[in-house]
Amino acid sequence: MPTGTHPPLQRDASQPLAGQLADRYAQRIRERLLLPGARLPSVRDCARQHGVSPHTVVAAYDQLQAAGLLEARRQRGFFVRDTRPAPQRAARTPAATAPRQVPMDATALIRGMFEADAARSPGLGTLPADWLDPALLQSALRRLREDDGDGLQLGYGDPSGDARLRAALSHRLADLGIHAGPAQILTTHGATHALDLLIRTHLQPGDAVLVDDPGWAILFARLTQAGIRLLPVPRGANGPDLDVLATLAAAHAPRAYLTVSVLHNPTGHSLNLADAHRLLRLADEHDFTIVEDDSYGFLAPEHSPRLAALDGLRRVTYVGGFSKVLTPAWRVGFLAAAPERLAAVTDTKLLDGLTSSPVLERAVALCLEQGRLRRHAQRLRERLAAARQRVAALAAAQGFGWAAPLEGLFGWLDVGVDTERLAQPLLDAGWLVAPGALFSATRRPGSLMRLNMATSQDPAFWRELRACVDAMRGH
Amino acid sequence: MPTGTHPPLQRDASQPLAGQLADRYAQRIRERLLLPGARLPSVRDCARQHGVSPHTVVAAYDQLQAAGLLEARRQRGFFVRDTRPAPQRAARTPAATAPRQVPMDATALIRGMFEADAARSPGLGTLPADWLDPALLQSALRRLREDDGDGLQLGYGDPSGDARLRAALSHRLADLGIHAGPAQILTTHGATHALDLLIRTHLQPGDAVLVDDPGWAILFARLTQAGIRLLPVPRGANGPDLDVLATLAAAHAPRAYLTVSVLHNPTGHSLNLADAHRLLRLADEHDFTIVEDDSYGFLAPEHSPRLAALDGLRRVTYVGGFSKVLTPAWRVGFLAAAPERLAAVTDTKLLDGLTSSPVLERAVALCLEQGRLRRHAQRLRERLAAARQRVAALAAAQGFGWAAPLEGLFGWLDVGVDTERLAQPLLDAGWLVAPGALFSATRRPGSLMRLNMATSQDPAFWRELRACVDAMRGH
Repeated sequence: MPTGTHPPLQRDASQPLAGQLADRYAQRIRERLLLPGARLPSVRDCARQHGVSPHTVVAAYDQLQAAGLLEARRQRGFFVRDTRPAPQRAARTPAATAPRQVPMDATALIRGMFEADAARSPGLGTLPADWLDPALLQSALRRLREDDGDGLQLGYGDPSGDARLRAALSHRLADLGIHAGPAQILTTHGATHALDLLIRTHLQPGDAVLVDDPGWAILFARLTQAGIRLLPVPRGANGPDLDVLATLAAAHAPRAYLTVSVLHNPTGHSLNLADAHRLLRLADEHDFTIVEDDSYGFLAPEHSPRLAALDGLRRVTYVGGFSKVLTPAWRVGFLAAAPERLAAVTDTKLLDGLTSSPVLERAVALCLEQGRLRRHAQRLRERLAAARQRVAALAAAQGFGWAAPLEGLFGWLDVGVDTERLAQPLLDAGWLVAPGALFSATRRPGSLMRLNMATSQDPAFWRELRACVDAMRGH
Repeated sequence: MPTGTHPPLQRDASQPLAGQLADRYAQRIRERLLLPGARLPSVRDCARQHGVSPHTVVAAYDQLQAAGLLEARRQRGFFVRDTRPAPQRAARTPAATAPRQVPMDATALIRGMFEADAARSPGLGTLPADWLDPALLQSALRRLREDDGDGLQLGYGDPSGDARLRAALSHRLADLGIHAGPAQILTTHGATHALDLLIRTHLQPGDAVLVDDPGWAILFARLTQAGIRLLPVPRGANGPDLDVLATLAAAHAPRAYLTVSVLHNPTGHSLNLADAHRLLRLADEHDFTIVEDDSYGFLAPEHSPRLAALDGLRRVTYVGGFSKVLTPAWRVGFLAAAPERLAAVTDTKLLDGLTSSPVLERAVALCLEQGRLRRHAQRLRERLAAARQRVAALAAAQGFGWAAPLEGLFGWLDVGVDTERLAQPLLDAGWLVAPGALFSATRRPGSLMRLNMATSQDPAFWRELRACVDAMRGH
């Protein structure tokens, strides 16, 4: 009997069951929902999931092997083959240069998330559209033309970014205790672009860099692509393990620590003052810089301490954006840094794509001015707090526990089984989740997964999760 | 007596003349209008320009030297010192990695252009704002909200770019004889960003790449930063010298040729069919790819042949944008490529900043649809043709000749004296020009300069140019 999570195969169809099953997996592989290297369910599991005989599954896997989509590994099972053409230039690559191949699994998974239906995506990385404030956005777009004394913006704009946005950001940062004049701020196409510019400007292939582990897959992928050695700093319910960090710093002389200090993705943890102070002393002692990614800052309590506030932008470069509070569609972010660091980053920005759009930057400035964004963020925080309560109740009712206290947008759930394997039957049932391996610097599988408080409120998801976990535990 | 191009120093001020003069140059150096390595006027020239005695100039230069802003080089004169801190990490740089230092002079010069007053900038790289069509842009921004069935865009958008823009671009490309479905198109933050993504995805430090010489400074700087070896292909009135290209290709096995096929910047030259055909055969023979930058394509006659049309996007990747026809403020560009090449570039785009803004991409789509952009481009072409006639008459009246036939936005003027040196007195007189060295892959000075047909129509500029050239020739 099928477990109920899979659309049933059609027994009266002209195509045999094995062919239908093979087609279903082939499509999933082509769409990269199953990635190269992913393990397929065991024959027995697959048979049960789809309500067919093991014989049918063996026949389907045979067909997929014949089509070159799967490979059998002795004693281990069936795995998706890497069907991309081998890099043509491997032989020419000088050994000392950076590995250029993009870790495809991270980008493919993230790509899947862009295309996902938010209501069915407990693993989503942003607020769903119905949590945003279209009236605020529309009003800003309208005012761009109507009451903007500077008129419609037609030129490239200032390479440092729209002056009015930088002035508004300078005020916002002052509220956080970070003193940065507009001249210390550079706008970017979102926070990810800011991180990319910093990596390109200040790091070289072979450099070692401390990262939060778990942390953000896109950042790991970007650093790996740049030939940077990752030094993962374990981060749990109590924040980054600073003893490990000190040991790594002493052994590897890292250039920098890239960290989300407030509402860390995926654990939701925010650094406390004592740890922030100790971290900055370690940075002094071992002479590394810190990139503080504050992408989730608007969703945090007003009093959360920032490293940049303690440090005064001496060793710390501060990165922020608006995808998590206004909309990801505008692609506006920024960084604040010491002047001597900023000039080189500005040059990188120019070479990489000239200016960023002064139109959307002005729109963000209009949202920041007059406090409308601040009020919107306040409402989001209240709504998120209520969502966290509901999600906590749903998790408790199904007997699941959290690996860190619930704060901000994300929860870090421990389900007791390998979440990378769990993701597949959940996807079959229509739920997109974010397994822990996605956030591991070493892609290590584990029993944790990231949940988005805004999109994990459907009891049907929690029932399905319980059923899938139980099914995996069943053998 | 001063030549009249400099604001006079104040003889009755409390500050001595030498101090005033030193301050003036110090400010220019700080603002990077005078760049590290630039030569100051000779003492005699400077004295004449500012209407002071040579003794005053010597005193001023002494003060600047004491302040660390100038250095004297024996027999050669006074030069602006490089006051940036030396790269701290030179000793740690592995020999085989790419040089990461940005060629500052190019970015500083380009930065100057962003801040320039268009009416006083015959060297401008884009159409001035009053040549654009604000009504078209405003209408598109308005329709984003009003009659767009998809509603306000709130999410990250498709990593490949807005589907409606890609569909509209597919039609536009078909008009040029380039057959690329929407799935073969990737949107970017402008054409420069497209070039950057291609460089990052397909090139490695140490690779050799053919470039047009003269060509675009930002591209040279970007390639140099990436550790790419430039192979300059001379490009004159008859286009790229394909004999030289063949020799370079045979000797250096380049990975690619990055070229502006239509209305090349700065010469204005467009590749003819026979040369396009021969170039593609050379690419086959020597196995290099071609990146065709068609940034100026909208300003070209409809029938201009594109390499991508001949080649069918086999070896050619096509790059385009809207900064030269709609507005640089929206930062929307794109590339079209063979599917197997496109996937890797899309991954690079994701890692570099996730998606590009679906809002402004939709706005461009709205301009492209219904033919409004096509009609605007037609009007621009007619207006540019008239401007070229006027500029040609002004140049002729002052006795100047062109190094290539006048086409499109730019003219490549030969003034018979070193235009890098000429740029300084012209700037002193308030005219920003684009000296030929800026477009040279080796920063070689020469007697050519790029003029923008839209911003070179003031007879006062031509009189000043004549006067400055004559003054330089005078000794």
